[in-house]
Parts: sequence; C-alpha cells; structure tokens
Amino acid sequence: MDFDRIIDRRGTHSVKWDVMEQAYGVSPEDGLPMWVADMDFRAADPIQAALAAMLDHGIYGYYGDDTGYRAAICWWMAERHGWTVDPGAIFTTHGLVNGTAMCVDTFTAPGDGVVLFTPVYHAFAKVIRAAGREVVECEMVNDAGRYRLDFDAWDAQMTGRETMLVFCSPHNPGGRVWSRNELAGVAAFAKRHDLILVSDEIHHDLVFPGSTHIPMALIEGIEDRLVMMTATTKTFNIAGSHTGNVIIHDAALRARFADRMAALGMSANSFGLVMAEAAYSPAGAAWVDGLIDYLDGNRRLFDQGIDAIPGLHSMPLESTYLAWVDFTGTGMPREDFTARVETQARIAANHGPTFGKGGESFLRFNLATPRARVVEAVERLQAAFSDLQ
Amino acid sequence: MDFDRIIDRRGTHSVKWDVMEQAYGVSPEDGLPMWVADMDFRAADPIQAALAAMLDHGIYGYYGDDTGYRAAICWWMAERHGWTVDPGAIFTTHGLVNGTAMCVDTFTAPGDGVVLFTPVYHAFAKVIRAAGREVVECEMVNDAGRYRLDFDAWDAQMTGRETMLVFCSPHNPGGRVWSRNELAGVAAFAKRHDLILVSDEIHHDLVFPGSTHIPMALIEGIEDRLVMMTATTKTFNIAGSHTGNVIIHDAALRARFADRMAALGMSANSFGLVMAEAAYSPAGAAWVDGLIDYLDGNRRLFDQGIDAIPGLHSMPLESTYLAWVDFTGTGMPREDFTARVETQARIAANHGPTFGKGGESFLRFNLATPRARVVEAVERLQAAFSDLQ
Ligand SMILES: Cc1ncc(COP(=O)(O)O)c(C=O)c1O
Ligand SMILES: Cc1ncc(COP(=O)(O)O)c(C=O)c1O
Repeated sequence: MDFDRIIDRRGTHSVKWDVMEQAYGVSPEDGLPMWVADMDFRAADPIQAALAAMLDHGIYGYYGDDTGYRAAICWWMAERHGWTVDPGAIFTTHGLVNGTAMCVDTFTAPGDGVVLFTPVYHAFAKVIRAAGREVVECEMVNDAGRYRLDFDAWDAQMTGRETMLVFCSPHNPGGRVWSRNELAGVAAFAKRHDLILVSDEIHHDLVFPGSTHIPMALIEGIEDRLVMMTATTKTFNIAGSHTGNVIIHDAALRARFADRMAALGMSANSFGLVMAEAAYSPAGAAWVDGLIDYLDGNRRLFDQGIDAIPGLHSMPLESTYLAWVDFTGTGMPREDFTARVETQARIAANHGPTFGKGGESFLRFNLATPRARVVEAVERLQAAFSDLQ
Repeated sequence: MDFDRIIDRRGTHSVKWDVMEQAYGVSPEDGLPMWVADMDFRAADPIQAALAAMLDHGIYGYYGDDTGYRAAICWWMAERHGWTVDPGAIFTTHGLVNGTAMCVDTFTAPGDGVVLFTPVYHAFAKVIRAAGREVVECEMVNDAGRYRLDFDAWDAQMTGRETMLVFCSPHNPGGRVWSRNELAGVAAFAKRHDLILVSDEIHHDLVFPGSTHIPMALIEGIEDRLVMMTATTKTFNIAGSHTGNVIIHDAALRARFADRMAALGMSANSFGLVMAEAAYSPAGAAWVDGLIDYLDGNRRLFDQGIDAIPGLHSMPLESTYLAWVDFTGTGMPREDFTARVETQARIAANHGPTFGKGGESFLRFNLATPRARVVEAVERLQAAFSDLQ
C-alpha cells in the first residue's frame, strides 16, 4: 500500500491524463489532472493476484456461475455497511452510469421529470436528457459551506410529472454523508411525490473518520420504491472494468428491471466479476482502510492550503476524494478564476456548472493522487491567487 | 500456438465446463463439453502481452482516447476482409448479444416482427422475445445436408409487420459461408420487405480453405438499411471481455443508434478495448491462420468419424467450429438420440430445437478443443451408436 508512489499514467489510455489537454488545455507535460474521478494509485494486491491468475490460465471464455461473486457482495455490504443483501436481488450493469440509465429506461417514460439534488454528479443529467426525460434540478442550500436539503422549497417545485429521484449518497460533489434524519427526509419526499428512489451509493466506502454512511436500504418503509446502486469501482479504483451493481429487493421493481436487462442482452464481463470478487474480501477491506487514511491526509492538507487563500473555500469532505472549492469570495467572474487555475496553476479541475444549479462558482479537484501532487497543487493555487493574499 | 495443449478449465468460472452438469447432466469429471461457443485454447501472445502490460501498470481507471483501437479495427477489416470501415462508424457494445438487442431496441417497436433464417444462433430469438417483438422464423431448406435460402417461400410468409432481419453470416449453425449471389438475395429480400438488415458476422474470421467470406457491406445498394456486427471475441476466444462492434455507415441509422447508446449510458470496458487492439494486428492474424488450420483438421476428423455412423450426418463446415449433426437417419425420437449422447457418450452438445424451426433433429458440437478430445468424442459417439453400424 504505497500510495506515495508516483506512477506515470501518460500514454496508458487514461482519460484523466491523456485527454486533459484536449479538455482543459492543460498539458500533461507539467499539468496536474484533478478532474475525472479515478485514482492515481495501483490496485490492491488481491485484485492484482486475481488478474494474474486469470492471465496465467490464459483462457477468457464465457463466465459461468457467479455464486461466489454475489456472496462477496453480500459479505461486503454486511461487513462494511451493516446491510443484508439478498444475492438474488443483485444485477450487474456496465458500471453505474449504465445502471442509472437502465433505471431511467425501466422506471420512467419519455417526458417524465427526474429529480436531482444539485449540484450533483454530471452524468446523471446527461443520461436523463439523452433518454428524453426532463431533469428537474432541486438546488441544495449552501449553508455556510455545507449542503443542506431543502424539502419545503422542493415540495413547492414539484409539478406531478416527476416519477424518479436519483439521489447521491454520499454526495458528489460536496462530500456530504447524509444523516439518518436527512435520509428519512429523502425517503419521505420520494413517497410524498410518488417517486422511484434510486440511491447511488458508489462513494459509500470512502468515508472519513467522524462520519458514518447509512445505506438508504436501512431506512424504514422505502423498500417498495427503492433501487440501490453500489460498485467496487470507485472504492478500488477499477472504473475501467465498467462493472457495477443495481440491487433491488422489491419483487415487482426487480421483475421490471430484470425484463429490461434481458431485453437489452446485458451480461457482465469476466474481468469485472473476478476483480470485484477479489476486492470484496478481508484483504480488500484492509487496503480500503489504508486508502481512507491516506485520502484523509490529502484532504486535510488541501483544505488547509485552500482555505488560507482569501476568497477560496474548500467544502470539508465527509466522504469522497473530490474537493469542491467555492471561488465566490474572490469576486471574480467564472472565466477568470478558471483561467487562473488552468493557465497559471496548470491544473485541470471539473467546471462547476456541469454539476447543475448551484455549481456556478465552483471547481472540483480530485485529491486521489500521491500527496506530493496535492502539495504541488496547493502551492500552484496559492501562487495563482497570490494577489488576493 | 500449441493448440494440442490440454488446459484444465474446471473451477475457472467457465460456463462451458462448470455449468455443463447442471445444464446437461454430464459430469465434468469425465464428460466432454461441446456446447457453449468458446474455445479451450489459450489466448494469442499479443493479447497476453497487452494484458500483462496492463497488470504491470496496475491502474485500471477510466479509458480515454480510443483512436488506436478504432484504427486496429479498420486495419483488420481492410486487411482480412477487403472492407473499408470509417472509424467514426464504429460503436462498441457489450458483446453482440447486447449489440443485437440494441439494434432491436433502436430500430424496431414492440409488436414488430423480426425475421430470422432458422435454424440460427439461439440468443437472437431470446433477445427479440425479451424485448416484446415477434420472432418470424423463416426456415432454410436443408438441401442434401447444406442450407439453402428460400426467398420465394419467405416472400409469401411476410405480413408487412416485419421491420428487421437479423442475418448470420457466416451461419451458425450449419457453417455456411454465403456466396455473393446469396448475399445479394438477402439484401434484395430486406429491401423488398423494407427491413433493417442486421448482419452478424462474428464468425467471419473462422473460414476454412475453399470458402471466402464477403462482408454484407460490400453488397451494392444496401448501405442505407445495413447494420454490421463484428467482434474479436469468437476469433480470438475472448468472449469473457464482452466487447463487440456495431458498425453503421448510414448517417441516419448511425444517429439513431448513437442516441440509444447515450440514453443507456453505454461505454466499453478497458480490458476488452486493450485486448481487441492487440488482437487486430499482424501477430494476431498469424495466430488466427494457425487456428483455422487446426480447426480445419478437427472438423475433417469429426465429420469423417460421424459420417461413418449410419444415420448420422455432420454438415460440412465452411466456417465456424460448430458442427451441426443431423440424427434424422437414426429414426430415433429426439429424446433417445440425445440421451445416448449425454448418458452414453457423456457429451454436452446444444439441443437443436433451441435454434428454431428446422433444428429438431440436430445437435450442435463445439470442435474448438484439443484434437485428442475430438478423437475421444468421435469414439464415444461411435460406441454410443454402435448398434447402428
Ligand atoms: C455518484 C457517481 N455515480 C456514478 C459514477 C460513475 O460510475 P461508473 O464508472 O460505474 O459508470 C460516479 C463517478 O464519478 C459517481 O461519482
Ligand atoms: C452468431 C453469433 N452472434 C453472437 C454471439 C455471441 O456474441 P457475444 O458473446 O459477443 O454476446 C455468438 C456466440 O456464439 C454467435 O454465434
């Protein structure tokens, strides 16, 4: 677990490194890619070992019995999240963008409204719009640098055409780990407006000391409208495997989803299945514990460095490695602070507006990289905004 | 290229080996799995090398620029099939069952008829039915042990509700490599009945000396209703990667397909992309040449052995490693010849009726295994039917 090790990802088909110049004009020569949500760390040993065994065998035919894979998922959810999963309730999709899209496709009709609490992970809106559904942006309240859910305002916003809520828990960006009380509020909101509740919990394992993630499935009385989504890919940095889980305990919803999976001829790739089974293990858990510890150090260092720049504020992360930095205090137009970050600091960070309403004055910085790079990023940002000091 | 090498696939999540007992009652202890269409051969060196490089790097994040991958596909199609592909016309689906399903989803409506020339690969009917479309089975003529297309009969069968034809070229099962004349007939049939023509050419590389595969894309005047499907997975025995290509040159059809790909949030896994790029190379081509030579030996040996059993006939394969054996001449009911194969010969072979009309008296045997196993299969079948000798 040498998270400090610098591994050159350039020229390895990494979108984060190899597409950054095209996307942000920041050269990989000396730029820092802090956008796309994957990590610059090597995979955990159990994953490497499982892949090595596949290679050693050298035959990559059709994957059969997935009992062990399902059992590993159930073990992980019980062990790490206190959540009992029925192995028969698990679907494997091609990652959770595909999982979200499959939910939209299965449970909503063209023209329906799909609710998002914004700012939120940009691909949600993308697939909802691509499917011809309407994105209904419910803006969260930025309460002294911490997001708060605003059900009263959102109740008034509903028109009756909304049929689904895609909820992000823990939240990307902003890093909120929702309390039991907040989760119960979300469930009540979904019931009140008769919405299918899709709870994307892909960041559930990356929670910092002081916070505890509660799976939405543990909230009373929501099961009959609940779709859970989880994955190994963020936790273990294996997003390239494009494998995720949609977990549906309600029999009627599950049957509808199963029908669409069959109609679209979906079946998982063997690499994703083998990696996930290896990851969801005691050795995988130990790696994740080490990772959280390391990321916790990165975010403390980053937040301290950023908050020392007058006018900038980094939301204190309770989860995720995605720092959400507010530039409002600089008084600068978006183009200006963005140009300083990209041109002066030579950092590629996600633009806030892509996350929807409320993201306008933000940039999102990915901190899942060796600490030396986080130090470098802080120094470059301090220099780029030194006139504000 | 040691195709004779016996590699134990039991306990490796192989559906062919590890699910055979459940599916056919044939024990993997001493049974021969000759069903599922993957091969018992190790992957080609360029694929192993590419995977080893991925493992050595050890970071499996989001895959970016796929220019090299697309270029490799274009190179292969030009080099091996004389077909010029526009790299922008390529979609990557999660294999071709998914690719077929995406075509059905994109280009047909519930209740539409989708035409199949039967007997044909069973998963076509499965996804068509799962999508709530009607399977229209047009039965081919078995002309002295060789399939013939029967357009006159099929013209009379059309009702006007048919909107798509899923064509298998080369054909599984039966192993026909269609002539230019036959392909022109299929294209004319599709035009005459206003059908989108989906040409599944997944077996196109596995063609035996004496036959030449012609891509449907080379037939004049069909481009505006044509969807081509190809993959590395059959050719290179990497079906576990679940990666295939849907190639659409017509701009209007391509736009519709692109919309559905976006709406379903589809993107390919990095293992499949890396393996395909490595496979579609001169080193990959040399491996395929060796493979065809080996498979040609297997099918000669098998056909000779089978045809020596009175009442059995193996269709001479022009392509594919899937022998299609007719048991009509035995005069036995299906249950009886199947029981002899499974119980006496201890061979798991696909049941004919799953391939649709015309498959009733057949079993399909997968010959892509070390020759010693093919020899053993022939001996067991000769013994099981020795009373007919
Ligand atoms: C909330 C959330 N959902 C889904 C994804 C992506 O999922 P996948 O890579 O499985 O498609 C991300 C990636 O950042 C995410 O933050
Ligand atoms: C004609 C045909 N199409 C598609 C497939 C399977 O495709 P995939 O594994 O890419 O889903 C097969 C497998 O046997 C086949 O024979």
